[in-house]
Amino acid sequence: MTNEELRTQIAELLSKRELRRLRDMLVEIRPADIVERISELSPDDMAVVFRILPRQVGADVFEYLDADQQKTLLSSLGHERAAVLLNEMDPDDRTALLEEFPPAAARQLVQLLSREERSIALRLLGYPEHSVGRLMTPDYVALREQWTVGQALEHVRAQARESAGNLHILYVLDQTGKLVDDIRIRDLLLSPLNAPLANLMNHSFVCLNATDDQEVAVHHFKKYDRTALPVIDSQGHMLGLVTVDDVLDVAEEEATEDIQKLGGVEALEDPYIKTPLLHLVKKRASWLVILFVGEMLTASAMGFFQSEIEQAVVLALFIPLIISSGGNSGSQAATLIIRSLAIGEVTLQDWFRVFKRELAAGLCLGLVLGFIGFLRIAVWSTVGNAYGPHWFLIGLSVSFSLVAVVLWGVLSGAMLPFLLKRLGLDPATSSAPFVATLVDVTGLVIYFTIAAKLLGGILL
Amino acid sequence: MTNEELRTQIAELLSKRELRRLRDMLVEIRPADIVERISELSPDDMAVVFRILPRQVGADVFEYLDADQQKTLLSSLGHERAAVLLNEMDPDDRTALLEEFPPAAARQLVQLLSREERSIALRLLGYPEHSVGRLMTPDYVALREQWTVGQALEHVRAQARESAGNLHILYVLDQTGKLVDDIRIRDLLLSPLNAPLANLMNHSFVCLNATDDQEVAVHHFKKYDRTALPVIDSQGHMLGLVTVDDVLDVAEEEATEDIQKLGGVEALEDPYIKTPLLHLVKKRASWLVILFVGEMLTASAMGFFQSEIEQAVVLALFIPLIISSGGNSGSQAATLIIRSLAIGEVTLQDWFRVFKRELAAGLCLGLVLGFIGFLRIAVWSTVGNAYGPHWFLIGLSVSFSLVAVVLWGVLSGAMLPFLLKRLGLDPATSSAPFVATLVDVTGLVIYFTIAAKLLGGILL
Repeated sequence: MTNEELRTQIAELLSKRELRRLRDMLVEIRPADIVERISELSPDDMAVVFRILPRQVGADVFEYLDADQQKTLLSSLGHERAAVLLNEMDPDDRTALLEEFPPAAARQLVQLLSREERSIALRLLGYPEHSVGRLMTPDYVALREQWTVGQALEHVRAQARESAGNLHILYVLDQTGKLVDDIRIRDLLLSPLNAPLANLMNHSFVCLNATDDQEVAVHHFKKYDRTALPVIDSQGHMLGLVTVDDVLDVAEEEATEDIQKLGGVEALEDPYIKTPLLHLVKKRASWLVILFVGEMLTASAMGFFQSEIEQAVVLALFIPLIISSGGNSGSQAATLIIRSLAIGEVTLQDWFRVFKRELAAGLCLGLVLGFIGFLRIAVWSTVGNAYGPHWFLIGLSVSFSLVAVVLWGVLSGAMLPFLLKRLGLDPATSSAPFVATLVDVTGLVIYFTIAAKLLGGILL
Repeated sequence: MTNEELRTQIAELLSKRELRRLRDMLVEIRPADIVERISELSPDDMAVVFRILPRQVGADVFEYLDADQQKTLLSSLGHERAAVLLNEMDPDDRTALLEEFPPAAARQLVQLLSREERSIALRLLGYPEHSVGRLMTPDYVALREQWTVGQALEHVRAQARESAGNLHILYVLDQTGKLVDDIRIRDLLLSPLNAPLANLMNHSFVCLNATDDQEVAVHHFKKYDRTALPVIDSQGHMLGLVTVDDVLDVAEEEATEDIQKLGGVEALEDPYIKTPLLHLVKKRASWLVILFVGEMLTASAMGFFQSEIEQAVVLALFIPLIISSGGNSGSQAATLIIRSLAIGEVTLQDWFRVFKRELAAGLCLGLVLGFIGFLRIAVWSTVGNAYGPHWFLIGLSVSFSLVAVVLWGVLSGAMLPFLLKRLGLDPATSSAPFVATLVDVTGLVIYFTIAAKLLGGILL
């Protein structure tokens, strides 16, 4: 049966109220796949589906819905059903959901939680946004350092019954709850039951701090190749666990934000297609207006050179070509450097090394474009006499300007991200359009200055 | 001791040849951290470090080095030491390393492997680049469906001794090696030892195909929130395992590639700072030259309107302002849509929905910029008489052009990625600079056409 047929069948069973058959059909499907098949149902129908699904399946499916659907569903379901779903959610996912609600509604929902879950939720909500604390789940298995392997395995078995946490790595705490080591279950399974746990410990572990930025988590997971990392507070007490699948989402969101900023858009909080139109326009208008006001300086600059243009309109023909070349080469450099800074491949200390590289690269690129530009003017002039008797000097002006403007574009594009980072701002703010605008204005000045030098007394 | 001090101390111990003390010091440090402290040593010194490190520590550290350092090191070490390192590597990481060498050198290295590892390496190298097959490791624990829980746990214990694989999830195969289910170790630990394994099975599992693109793996890990997924061949036989930490790297590399393409640079194979200068220039020059040649059309377009410009130089003043506004708004739209397509938030089928949204957004943005543009001309004219007696009509021309050019920029930026995807090309090719160039040329035509209509017989 195709997805389409399945969807139709679900809709049919719902409309005929054959709920028992629907339930039997759905429990055969994986939660992540159920979501695909019900995500286009009306809120009421979806609420019906959740009322008939077995409690655990319903909870699993609920976690795969996106935040909007979760919100709608919680409002359609009665308090009792909503409480079941919320209580069964992974604490880190629940935190993300609660953040979606206005504070008053979030407080109401927290009241639906069991006492234990409520204290977890309030604690996680207490960590700053984008901090590791918000990502963590308290579902981990803690061992005591004075136990034997046998006691530890017994404890693991008991815990496995209760929690959904990963059993691959277990955490050893001292009496005060401080993390002292991590142990792989493999090592437990390989050791004699009466051996003290201390024999397996090397007191060497990697951990995250709850107040660390989530970017730190991404970096640690990449560096240490782990599937989960423990989270501690400033005193070293273990608070929870972050798993790599949550970090995969964080890494993707960060890349999306960076890409949007590079494109000259304020980062969107929601997926593009779900962002209300007015909000989308606002996010784009703010930067667009800033760039527009900056770009108005080109009109001023051109006004300043108006008499030159009147004397030699031919010069005006190459303005878009020259300024856009500066903009394009600047965008390239900015993009490369911003991404390298974001993934930690290049750091602030490397600025001079990058400067030297980009100086060389900018010169090469400028010479290539300058050469092609001259060639084009020479050919058009020889074949069609397009640019009058002084085409050679015009060609030289354009050519030299291209070298200078491209070099200037590359260097500004490469150095601005460093400057912004040094000032504690986000390097991605020096987006491609931002660099292009900067280079447009200065590019005009460079072009007319060079033209005035070369053509002064001849055309100007 | 700070990192810097540690590095100095390592260099000192090396120069004094106090190798035993160096070894004692290094074995106390985590492999990922050892790498940070030795990565700036000369190749010879690094080879010395690897000769003194215990075999397993050396192998761990080696895996954290980047590909270049691994290459250099393998060449500096004797065959015997190199063989040890290669044999101890995770098969997926080894595959990635072997790909870095020229084919002849890679074949030589494969010869250094044990018979068993050699067959694994050759098999992984047989899968196409960017396929899931290249990412997988054969280190997993396979159970037989007819076993009891006790037999299965016994087997897990034996396997744990030999391999380094993740024990969190175990895989049940039939006699022919076909994957029939996955079982969590939690469920084994919770079941009585004499229960048949079949009791724990639900024959429902998620898996990857070895020939799938690595993007599919990223998508599956995000959808199903797993830390590892099994890989099968076209007949359903289990071949290996992909773990989420490798997928985190793939997702990051893909984001980097997309970002570079969006910035108008061909994707770099290596990190920016490691890419040789000449190569870096080539990757940028190709697009820059294409854009330059495209942008030359602006000179032609302006040539076409040369007589209009001569009659009213004032029109030329606003050219950069108008075309850059189209370019900026187009870059924004392209960036948003390309990213949404890349992460699957928007699909080809959504094109008309996006078209309608962008039509509305483009109109709003155009009206905002058009209004500001008119205001600026009105103010400058009232205060300073900057644009002559016909400033009102000039203002209207600029203003109308801005609306049209921004709308056109937004629509081309939003629709080009769909068109490219429909043609089977990479949407990210319609980079911000590409859209900007397209809009520059057409923007000029729009501007002069509108100006001719409004100012014909007056200024023109």
